[in-house]
Amino acid sequence: MEKPNKFVYHFSAENTEGSKDLGHLLGGKGAHLAEMSSMGVPVPPGFTITADMNLYFYKNKQKLPDFFYKQIRKDIQVLEKQTGLNFGSTEKPLLLSVRSGAEVSMPGMMDTILNLGLNLKIVKKMAQTDARWAWDCYRRLIQMYGDVVLGADASMFVFFMEDYKSKKNYNSDADLTAEDLEHLSVQFKEQVLQMTGEEFPEDPEQQLFGAISAVFDSWNNSRAVAYRELNSYSHQLGTAVNVQTMVFGNRGENSATGVVFTRNPTTGEPHLFGEFLQQAQGEDVVAGIRTPLPVCGEKKSLETVLPSAFKQLVEISQKLEKHFQNMQDIEFTVEGGKLWILQTRNAKRSVRASLRTAVDFVKEGLMSEEEAVMSILPKDLEKLLHPTLDPQKKKDSLCKGLPASPGGAGGLIVFSSLEAIEKSHEKVILVRDETSPDDIKGMISAQGILTTRGGMTSHAAVVARGMGKCCIVGCNAIQIDMEKRECHVAGKILKEGDWITLDGSTGEVYLGEIPMVKPELDQYFYDFMKMVDRYSQVKVKANADTCEDASAAKNFGAEGIGLCRTEHMFFQEDRLDIVRKMILFQDDLEKRKTQLSSLLEKQKKDFLSIFQVMDGESVCIRLLDPPLHEFLPQNAKEIEELAVKWSEDVRHISEQVKSLKELNPMLGHRGCRLAVTFPELYQTQVRAVALAYVDIIQGHKKCFPEIMVPLVGTVKEFIYIRDLIRKTLDEVKKQSGVELHIPIGTMVELPQAALRSAELAKEADFFSYGSNDLTQTVLGISRDDCGRFLPDYINKGLIPADPFVQLEQHSVGWLIEFSAKSARNVKSDFPLGLCGEHGADPSSIEFLSRLGLNSLSCSPYRIPVAKVATAQAFIRSQGMKRENNSKELSI
Amino acid sequence: MEKPNKFVYHFSAENTEGSKDLGHLLGGKGAHLAEMSSMGVPVPPGFTITADMNLYFYKNKQKLPDFFYKQIRKDIQVLEKQTGLNFGSTEKPLLLSVRSGAEVSMPGMMDTILNLGLNLKIVKKMAQTDARWAWDCYRRLIQMYGDVVLGADASMFVFFMEDYKSKKNYNSDADLTAEDLEHLSVQFKEQVLQMTGEEFPEDPEQQLFGAISAVFDSWNNSRAVAYRELNSYSHQLGTAVNVQTMVFGNRGENSATGVVFTRNPTTGEPHLFGEFLQQAQGEDVVAGIRTPLPVCGEKKSLETVLPSAFKQLVEISQKLEKHFQNMQDIEFTVEGGKLWILQTRNAKRSVRASLRTAVDFVKEGLMSEEEAVMSILPKDLEKLLHPTLDPQKKKDSLCKGLPASPGGAGGLIVFSSLEAIEKSHEKVILVRDETSPDDIKGMISAQGILTTRGGMTSHAAVVARGMGKCCIVGCNAIQIDMEKRECHVAGKILKEGDWITLDGSTGEVYLGEIPMVKPELDQYFYDFMKMVDRYSQVKVKANADTCEDASAAKNFGAEGIGLCRTEHMFFQEDRLDIVRKMILFQDDLEKRKTQLSSLLEKQKKDFLSIFQVMDGESVCIRLLDPPLHEFLPQNAKEIEELAVKWSEDVRHISEQVKSLKELNPMLGHRGCRLAVTFPELYQTQVRAVALAYVDIIQGHKKCFPEIMVPLVGTVKEFIYIRDLIRKTLDEVKKQSGVELHIPIGTMVELPQAALRSAELAKEADFFSYGSNDLTQTVLGISRDDCGRFLPDYINKGLIPADPFVQLEQHSVGWLIEFSAKSARNVKSDFPLGLCGEHGADPSSIEFLSRLGLNSLSCSPYRIPVAKVATAQAFIRSQGMKRENNSKELSI
Repeated sequence: MEKPNKFVYHFSAENTEGSKDLGHLLGGKGAHLAEMSSMGVPVPPGFTITADMNLYFYKNKQKLPDFFYKQIRKDIQVLEKQTGLNFGSTEKPLLLSVRSGAEVSMPGMMDTILNLGLNLKIVKKMAQTDARWAWDCYRRLIQMYGDVVLGADASMFVFFMEDYKSKKNYNSDADLTAEDLEHLSVQFKEQVLQMTGEEFPEDPEQQLFGAISAVFDSWNNSRAVAYRELNSYSHQLGTAVNVQTMVFGNRGENSATGVVFTRNPTTGEPHLFGEFLQQAQGEDVVAGIRTPLPVCGEKKSLETVLPSAFKQLVEISQKLEKHFQNMQDIEFTVEGGKLWILQTRNAKRSVRASLRTAVDFVKEGLMSEEEAVMSILPKDLEKLLHPTLDPQKKKDSLCKGLPASPGGAGGLIVFSSLEAIEKSHEKVILVRDETSPDDIKGMISAQGILTTRGGMTSHAAVVARGMGKCCIVGCNAIQIDMEKRECHVAGKILKEGDWITLDGSTGEVYLGEIPMVKPELDQYFYDFMKMVDRYSQVKVKANADTCEDASAAKNFGAEGIGLCRTEHMFFQEDRLDIVRKMILFQDDLEKRKTQLSSLLEKQKKDFLSIFQVMDGESVCIRLLDPPLHEFLPQNAKEIEELAVKWSEDVRHISEQVKSLKELNPMLGHRGCRLAVTFPELYQTQVRAVALAYVDIIQGHKKCFPEIMVPLVGTVKEFIYIRDLIRKTLDEVKKQSGVELHIPIGTMVELPQAALRSAELAKEADFFSYGSNDLTQTVLGISRDDCGRFLPDYINKGLIPADPFVQLEQHSVGWLIEFSAKSARNVKSDFPLGLCGEHGADPSSIEFLSRLGLNSLSCSPYRIPVAKVATAQAFIRSQGMKRENNSKELSI
Repeated sequence: MEKPNKFVYHFSAENTEGSKDLGHLLGGKGAHLAEMSSMGVPVPPGFTITADMNLYFYKNKQKLPDFFYKQIRKDIQVLEKQTGLNFGSTEKPLLLSVRSGAEVSMPGMMDTILNLGLNLKIVKKMAQTDARWAWDCYRRLIQMYGDVVLGADASMFVFFMEDYKSKKNYNSDADLTAEDLEHLSVQFKEQVLQMTGEEFPEDPEQQLFGAISAVFDSWNNSRAVAYRELNSYSHQLGTAVNVQTMVFGNRGENSATGVVFTRNPTTGEPHLFGEFLQQAQGEDVVAGIRTPLPVCGEKKSLETVLPSAFKQLVEISQKLEKHFQNMQDIEFTVEGGKLWILQTRNAKRSVRASLRTAVDFVKEGLMSEEEAVMSILPKDLEKLLHPTLDPQKKKDSLCKGLPASPGGAGGLIVFSSLEAIEKSHEKVILVRDETSPDDIKGMISAQGILTTRGGMTSHAAVVARGMGKCCIVGCNAIQIDMEKRECHVAGKILKEGDWITLDGSTGEVYLGEIPMVKPELDQYFYDFMKMVDRYSQVKVKANADTCEDASAAKNFGAEGIGLCRTEHMFFQEDRLDIVRKMILFQDDLEKRKTQLSSLLEKQKKDFLSIFQVMDGESVCIRLLDPPLHEFLPQNAKEIEELAVKWSEDVRHISEQVKSLKELNPMLGHRGCRLAVTFPELYQTQVRAVALAYVDIIQGHKKCFPEIMVPLVGTVKEFIYIRDLIRKTLDEVKKQSGVELHIPIGTMVELPQAALRSAELAKEADFFSYGSNDLTQTVLGISRDDCGRFLPDYINKGLIPADPFVQLEQHSVGWLIEFSAKSARNVKSDFPLGLCGEHGADPSSIEFLSRLGLNSLSCSPYRIPVAKVATAQAFIRSQGMKRENNSKELSI
């Protein structure tokens, strides 16, 4: 790497070399300081050393080269000229701050050292003017420099100061006199020597270059490296260093320091919001040393205390927001009544505030609609839709699992679905090793679900998300003892009936009750979604199995139902008995047909009610998918009860149940394989759809059902099933005289189907990618069993993310792309959708949008997330470069 | 379809229009009759009506067109001229036979009607010369015509004749006098009228055209259609019809009819082998009406009875074998001392005879080596390697399952592996719903294995085939009642200790004992395999886990071990305890390491003994693959025993066992995923391999181990494991000073790995396709659970074959091809192998050979099959067209 040609950029009212567009060189802070200087905002003069120089520093074995010293000395002279002060001189001493500032915000890196350039001689001279100010500055310099440059233990300084104050009976730092601060300075310097073996340097130049080196070094400290890895930031960016003339908020009563937001960061309301402290410097406001005052709105505020500075602050705030086209978070200092701006940046804010500001900015002409849509991190919307734990009231957590379905929930522990149902008048949390379709009713009755096994797309996770119900899965630390009706975790024994609280957004489990904060969707949410809809090129549909789901889906803006699973209808109380008889009489076609005809009427009503709710929107019905044994009683007791109820032989039932058990049910007798063996099963379901359709049409309403065949592998298999379906539809058509327009499509959820899509597309009316099962088969990973090894894979960096959350693109994605191209090659407008869990994952949506999918389907509660992600994918594809959504903005 | 231009081909000593190359037109029989006529073999003159005409007949609504009648009448005149006889005349009447004959042999089609052209008037005239002959011919005509043309019940004729003979106290048909036969003829004609409502036609021409129509019709009767479907023969071939002058084996003592093979069809010994009957016609020899005499070798034989005819038969036989370059099966008739040949065809023979004739033919210059290799159906070789049920002693079977591993076995029923082991001094058959690795010892102890579930590649099937042990799986008809220690099948109750016999080659289960025929591999087998080896371009290796397997593999000609599974070593009695402790102490690394170090020595010995047996051949060791829970006790009783033995808490053990249970273990925590979580597991195995290797090298012997990583998905995962392996190898190298040349490769058994093969090939030393698991994941079918639906798929024609037996080429094969091309694109000589069950399936081998795979690996007992298949694939690829192996030749 060559020596950088120009590595210092000055900023001041007279001479500014940088601008906001040089963030990659000057860092966010430096670029904004330059921009503000150009705008005429009062910024203390200074200069920024580029991030390039930081990288050169690393090439140079972490040493500052000679040419660097020479250059910086010249730059200091420039500052001296601009300010009329002299660095290192006792007369009119120039004091400096050194602050790091990379292109991306980097907690973990060194931040700030103030008051550089002070030594005993200079302090004593300064003290002649204002003794308290002088010694406060010196004390702060020793403390900060000792800590971040020399590596002394920061807590020791705090300890000494607290100890000193308590001996003197002082309440706050403000009580410290000049003498006290002088005394502490001496003590601090001794401490530095003792802790680090190095003297605090009295040479201002040594201080300055030491501080710059420390900032450069901090780019690669372990916390900073870890943070970058966590956030996938490049290690090759480097950090800039800002060297700036000091201004003093600790120089008397007319001096102050503070932070202000241009709008309320919690609600987004459009008025200044911030705090300040008089007689303070640097982090004092944030550190909570004294209680700060509001900038406005109360009797004692900046507005009343320093009215002229406040007036100027209001003007500058508005100017900055307009200029940066975003809500700003501004650091300011008032020295002797004069306002200085030290930093401005886009403000972190709550999701609710993000939505409101996005909507307001568009109205105010500050942002285009595209920019407003891009300004929201899609998954943040989920936070709005679920009640959450009151962040003020959180405690230490008991243990942590995978955050499978967001929101908070609390209740009494129960260990079985039966108990959950029995205690449904109380709030309960269902705690299980894992759940099965048998648990649906228990899950409905519970406030939340906690499982010890399974991953983000295990049964519990998927069903809970579908219900919008709080759920934590794979919480390995918990061991359930069903016999004793208790569980063991972190050395504690929790009994049935103990209260626990779940945070489904973090995976944390708490003992005892924690209050909840309820979500309310305000007008800004709906206004924002209207904007989003104008950019969404992919239809977002809902996974919904009941008319309750369908209602929720419509409320969240679903454009139809993309996946209506029919199996859940089979689990309802009045059906299960029929279904079980149908399965257990499998050798007797006639008996089976009797059972099926009792199911027919019930299924017809199910479909009718969903069609009515969806009122003309498409409803894609997936025919029965799960292995039959899922419907059967699982243990000896249940089998016995059934035998008694039916007056059947226990042994016969238990043999049948046993014979249906499978070693790998995921790859077993399920999906359309059921209909190859028992065709009358699908025929009954199709007849129910068709009869419901006829009812709707005869009532002069609209309805667009689609029929989807699961687990298809080959085209012969699809044709066999399709012809079964057509035969049934033809029968209903003949009987009713109603024309039935019902497309018949297939899930593509097996590698085989993906590879043979050209053939399938010739015969099918549409595809829907079942990305959950496709991920399972392509990667050979059972989503119910991956909890024991996926975390190791992620921790060891062998895979980037849980493939059931974020679509694996190199092979699963490759196959979807291969299939989509094959299908579109056969029919250029062939309808393609996706109905796996990835349908609401923003990074997956980005990928899927590029493939030209027509629709995505996801849980009702994730529809807003999916809509924003599809809109963003579209806007991005249109070449819109500027993106304001980043992890940094969400809180 | 147009009217065929020429649809009659004459054959006679003077004028033959066809040849053996016109089989598609003239059928096998007609083509050979023509060929023999040209060769000067004494064949009664006649003509063949083409298969094209048969197809035209169907287009013509199954009616014979007018031009047909005209043409055939002309052809009859030709015959009359050639023979000096007159069709339909009482003076010198011309009698004819009509025989069907398609290109492929078609049981189920009409075969033969003899003596056409006879009526009462003619018979009476003929009777003046030889009354018995005349009435015998007439009786036969009515019987055959009544049956096959008019559709009378054939058994009625037999019944009448038997009834008549018993009334007369006759022993055989030969006792029937001319008067008896006249009487029977009258009775038969009455029967025909009664049974069919039609008079037996006295008009010779009506007889002839009726017989031709019947042959034409029989092409599409239900049995023929079913047979063609079963054998994938086209329905568009049609059958030819042969019309031929009658010669009479029933015309006095100097007349006879017989069948002769040019070599012994059971042993292949090179001498004539056949039987004949004097005074007989048609099927009499085969029908067993009288005991036939041998053609030679005994006191009373054709050689002694009709010496001149015999001499001529010997000469003609040799001539035919030489001409057709294959062993022949010849029908002949002697009329008044003169020999006539009625048919010749390639002889069906036993596998043993096939091998011997193939070897002898090459020696005798009758066949090229390529032709000899092509003459064997590969899978027939399996029959040689296992004891089989004595075909003479078979009875009605109880029920039928899938023939998972060939050979026969009989023994007492036991229902658990424990009992199998306890009763290992007796012969037992292990009868289970399914087997698991826990059953290995029981399977070893048993003579054979019978399961009620699972498919051709279920655990039981795979393991049994590996052991070369008889096994039937998926026998649904059997229901096991473990409590009562009995099973129910076909209305019978079989108790523990009842004797059953299994035919693993057909899947049939018999009650009681059936004697076995033991296999002996003779020199011809080895000579044949030497020939095969000269054409095999793909190495055939063995799946072998023990030194016993390795020995068997060497004996059958394995070129190394392509898959040495290490898990079976873990199941041995002295290991299982260690393995279990290792698993159950999974949270305690130190305890786990202690257990691993005790395993190390034992595993080292395992490898050492295998390396010694293989003596310098490559041994590819697959690191641990199955889910850990397979090693654990499965039920409460076993857990309790273990707890007592180890003085451990029952609850602790049972919790651990439970926590390791998986919903879909096939897609769970197995393969290299185990090593990502517990790296020391693979490290111990690798160390054992390395230490054994060092021992061999230090003993100045050769050894070529390879290490194979199972269930790899991504290149990062492979690199992680490979680096673990390398680290361990480096340690052993440092300690021992021995250079370790051990390639490290990966299984490709997941779609992901296949799709990302380019990346993997950069890092791996070789690939081995795990086609079993690849089939499971690509098709989404669990081989352990497919028994409940695959049969329906096959029966309904939705898939052509069990994909675990025959590689599914469109998607599984596609992925293998994609992977192979990707890998060879990266490194042009990248070694590729396959170690699934498909490695011994001929049709799969044909496909795999085209992909350029370097090696295949299969069970030791299937190595000869695989070798023949690879040699045949090579020969076929070289454009060798003539193939003599067909289903028709094997018996």
